[in-house]
Amino acid sequence: MALMTDHPELAMRERVLLVAERLFRQLGYQKTTVADIAKAMRMSPANVYRFFDSKKAIHEGVACRLMGEVEVAAQAITARPEPASQRLRDLITTVHRMNAERYVGDAKLHEMVAIAMEESWDVCVSHIERITAMIAEVIADGKKAGEFAVADVALASSCTCTAMINFFHPQLIAHADDKPGPTLDQMVDFVLAALAPCRPPVECCPG
Amino acid sequence: MALMTDHPELAMRERVLLVAERLFRQLGYQKTTVADIAKAMRMSPANVYRFFDSKKAIHEGVACRLMGEVEVAAQAITARPEPASQRLRDLITTVHRMNAERYVGDAKLHEMVAIAMEESWDVCVSHIERITAMIAEVIADGKKAGEFAVADVALASSCTCTAMINFFHPQLIAHADDKPGPTLDQMVDFVLAALAPCRPPVECCPG
Repeated sequence: MALMTDHPELAMRERVLLVAERLFRQLGYQKTTVADIAKAMRMSPANVYRFFDSKKAIHEGVACRLMGEVEVAAQAITARPEPASQRLRDLITTVHRMNAERYVGDAKLHEMVAIAMEESWDVCVSHIERITAMIAEVIADGKKAGEFAVADVALASSCTCTAMINFFHPQLIAHADDKPGPTLDQMVDFVLAALAPCRPPVECCPG
Repeated sequence: MALMTDHPELAMRERVLLVAERLFRQLGYQKTTVADIAKAMRMSPANVYRFFDSKKAIHEGVACRLMGEVEVAAQAITARPEPASQRLRDLITTVHRMNAERYVGDAKLHEMVAIAMEESWDVCVSHIERITAMIAEVIADGKKAGEFAVADVALASSCTCTAMINFFHPQLIAHADDKPGPTLDQMVDFVLAALAPCRPPVECCPG
């Protein structure tokens, strides 16, 4: 918090984002204006524009903040001393849970996500890259420990994220809810099997 | 074709579906009316309604016909004598290619798919179930031959389809085109690794 008091501009940006997120949840992104945000903060729109160029910039800030919370939780799991398989399961489960909490139950936030994916795709891409990098870090640890056997760690991470996309992508989580298919744990089992060392059936102890 | 001459009603239904598909591609699903379809067939709308209850029924018929073509191709691959791994790769590749051809390049057909998923979800589910069953058949063959080691064939098939969803689902194929990520063959390699027999690293030739 020292950072906020030493840097009042950061504190103000953060306040704008918190108020904006609350209004986006209540009114919806489309219906919220910068004037609404300013009024809720008892300041003029011009004052809000000192910190953000546009409504779109505020929207990106809110999206970044929400995605940042997921990244912080993921980073904490990545850094734990547990076996890589356990960390990978927890990481995947946590990303799913947090995305579902943040974006899926809430129609207004869901609209916000849809717009972010249309208008601020580069912000979403950076987030996806950070999550994928953390998954790669855990896979690399697992490879070193002999839990996993993969030729290309970055590719294995990319394939893991692609395999789990029904559980990661906010719009797919929303649609998959009422449809049959493997549970998250079953898909994690499948991914762990893909990463696990494989021996061809005819090998070892020849003769 | 004998079926068609012996059963003129089937022949007529097929003609309506072919004409409807052509108009949906040209004008779009929303803009095509039953009157348009009837006019293109030089008959009255009442005559078209003898074979289909509604425009929605015609739409479902067109969707079924297009999905049926994919199922026929998939069934042919499932029945081949090649090793299961090869059949599985070909099956997945073919479903992807045919879905991309049928639904993705074409904005009008894309709209048709979106509406089918909203209004005729049970028709889509039946198709997905048939493809999943064929994948299960190939996985079962692979298990019998020792190429694959899976406890639950149906679950393995379900996980395979979920892992490949970016390459199967028409709306995801469309969006994934311009985004980085594993190629289809890389995802198939990942799936085959998940299905392959795995031996824990410390095993065999003890001592």
